[in-house]
Amino acid sequence: VPLVTLLTDFGAADWYVAAVKGTLLRVAGERGAAPVTLVDVTHEVAPGDVAGGAFHLAAAAPAFPPDTVHLAVVDPGVGSDRRILVAEAAGALFVAPDNGLLEHVLGTARVRAVTRSDLFLAAPGATFHGRDRFAPVAAWLLAGGAPEELGPPVDDPVRLHLPRPRREGDELVGRVAHVDRFGNLVTDLPAGWLAAGDAPEASVGGHRTQAFVTCYDELAAGVAGLLVGSLGTLELSLRGASLADRWGVARGAAVRVAPRR
Amino acid sequence: VPLVTLLTDFGAADWYVAAVKGTLLRVAGERGAAPVTLVDVTHEVAPGDVAGGAFHLAAAAPAFPPDTVHLAVVDPGVGSDRRILVAEAAGALFVAPDNGLLEHVLGTARVRAVTRSDLFLAAPGATFHGRDRFAPVAAWLLAGGAPEELGPPVDDPVRLHLPRPRREGDELVGRVAHVDRFGNLVTDLPAGWLAAGDAPEASVGGHRTQAFVTCYDELAAGVAGLLVGSLGTLELSLRGASLADRWGVARGAAVRVAPRR
Amino acid sequence: VPLVTLLTDFGAADWYVAAVKGTLLRVAGERGAAPVTLVDVTHEVAPGDVAGGAFHLAAAAPAFPPDTVHLAVVDPGVGSDRRILVAEAAGALFVAPDNGLLEHVLGTARVRAVTRSDLFLAAPGATFHGRDRFAPVAAWLLAGGAPEELGPPVDDPVRLHLPRPRREGDELVGRVAHVDRFGNLVTDLPAGWLAAGDAPEASVGGHRTQAFVTCYDELAAGVAGLLVGSLGTLELSLRGASLADRWGVARGAAVRVAPRR
Repeated sequence: VPLVTLLTDFGAADWYVAAVKGTLLRVAGERGAAPVTLVDVTHEVAPGDVAGGAFHLAAAAPAFPPDTVHLAVVDPGVGSDRRILVAEAAGALFVAPDNGLLEHVLGTARVRAVTRSDLFLAAPGATFHGRDRFAPVAAWLLAGGAPEELGPPVDDPVRLHLPRPRREGDELVGRVAHVDRFGNLVTDLPAGWLAAGDAPEASVGGHRTQAFVTCYDELAAGVAGLLVGSLGTLELSLRGASLADRWGVARGAAVRVAPRR
Repeated sequence: VPLVTLLTDFGAADWYVAAVKGTLLRVAGERGAAPVTLVDVTHEVAPGDVAGGAFHLAAAAPAFPPDTVHLAVVDPGVGSDRRILVAEAAGALFVAPDNGLLEHVLGTARVRAVTRSDLFLAAPGATFHGRDRFAPVAAWLLAGGAPEELGPPVDDPVRLHLPRPRREGDELVGRVAHVDRFGNLVTDLPAGWLAAGDAPEASVGGHRTQAFVTCYDELAAGVAGLLVGSLGTLELSLRGASLADRWGVARGAAVRVAPRR
Repeated sequence: VPLVTLLTDFGAADWYVAAVKGTLLRVAGERGAAPVTLVDVTHEVAPGDVAGGAFHLAAAAPAFPPDTVHLAVVDPGVGSDRRILVAEAAGALFVAPDNGLLEHVLGTARVRAVTRSDLFLAAPGATFHGRDRFAPVAAWLLAGGAPEELGPPVDDPVRLHLPRPRREGDELVGRVAHVDRFGNLVTDLPAGWLAAGDAPEASVGGHRTQAFVTCYDELAAGVAGLLVGSLGTLELSLRGASLADRWGVARGAAVRVAPRR
């Protein structure tokens, strides 16, 4: 079954996401694809927030069947000469602008720049490549088209050059990679970096966690906890309230994790 | 056609809903299910608001085909030893944590606790059972699995112990069960409790309706009206404006309905 | 493949959209339709904003396959005697209340009023025709029903009587038809009205664009630009920021476009 996910910064109020989906379904149908299943990753990426989009795309993609096509459009450079990339990674296909949106899936991916302009749709303006270029390229893949036919390999995709988590002595030093709806502070620190038996504590912006737990429910009210989150990284949380609000912490804040003293 | 609905408090911005859907589609496919249709009930339940989620789940479910699987995850106790329930009611199946989320569908439902841990997915952390436990259980049902094989019957599911609407003399006494996007005050008072020919008025927080009507359009501007809402309960409304804002009324407020004096 | 789009002012938080979808799928299935694909246009139309809904519906519809059924419910007159329309335009079918929501698709459409009340569902109240009347009518069309059997032709559908863009000497005079999520000012002025070689500038509310460009990326930071938008109309934009916020401009504002002086 052809399956496509969509991630954009288009929001829920405008007609933009629907136009991408309509074009996907129309072109895939014209090309003889079987009925396509559409799944939204999110369209609430902040306008132009490529790094934020990259995080959500990489977090969601592993859940999907291996032959999924992931279409991602956070594209402030739309209409310029920035490239359109198609990447193959772990059996899945990613279609996105060449601006860092694929940062976290590029590891061992085979990446190509789309030069098949015959696939693009004639349309007014140069401001909506999601509809006019990305969607028909994704539809072509959903109909069984081979990435090799889309364009030449690329070995210099745009990278985000994010700071990497590191060890400093017995401390782990990273950052808040994401603040979720619940106000959890999701870090980029791999939980696997902790030694067995550690009872670590984390500090952010002068605040400090007071408990290392397995789940939110083990936290007493008002106690900031550290736990292993659903991406396998360390996460800071309150039970039933937003730690981000309590501490006034946002994405990008530095995080240090150390053995409890 | 396998059909699954999803209700969560995950919001639209995070990758969480997509990870649940990806897992559902992946596991259902692996188990040989026919292509699955996904429908969102809502993901805007306030974080941890089990009672709010229970309302929307019960309101939406009757519209769906009888063999629908309803997956509901508002789950502040994720990772603890709270049970995962599967309920059969009116031909539909409900998968949810045992915390009251199924309150309004438990009436004559057959309820089981899921003990088939072999269905759960290995994953980092214990904070995302929506992806790691609920989704694969729902996928198993979508592929034709029988609820009886998921675990033993349960006769003590967690209940919410909501106040029940009642009659006091010639008055009906209930509460605001929901404030919708339009600012309508949806009550828990069955419209069928009104006697034929009644021209009732409702009072909430010191305010009083001035008309009993069939639809919003019959209300003059600024006049608060009482009518029969789409769940068969009494509803208080303004035309073209939010009565909740006008009166400063929220969910849970006491409502009295009496014959007009 | 039966395909239906949905546009409403129901928002994402309430159970209303799900009830419409459940009913669509249930009734279409009962009538023997093949599995139906559902696509949301938007449900974030402001409550009762018929003109806003009409804009998004007309903008999204052309992207879809020609035999799509578009179901649109922004319906402050629900429960009154306002008609339910079915319109055929460019091979697509539109189902909507007769209140102007079809304004931009009525051009050469064949329009009928639905009088087949046998298709309507018995349900409590008269406030949710989306579920009880529009959905089963759309399901009937998805199952292959012919519009001709739904009711008599209508030649007086409700119109919105929006001001039309016009030429005044060498100037174009229109209005802001939509402010999108990015703060772009989408006008109703056809880009085709510009003469070749024009380097026009636009003014709104005492402010003036400083550049005529092809895409956002060509604009220097802080410079308001004019470009051809994705609907083929002129659009005013900032790069990476909201021009609507910067200038304090909202939908409906007058726009003048003139040759640069």
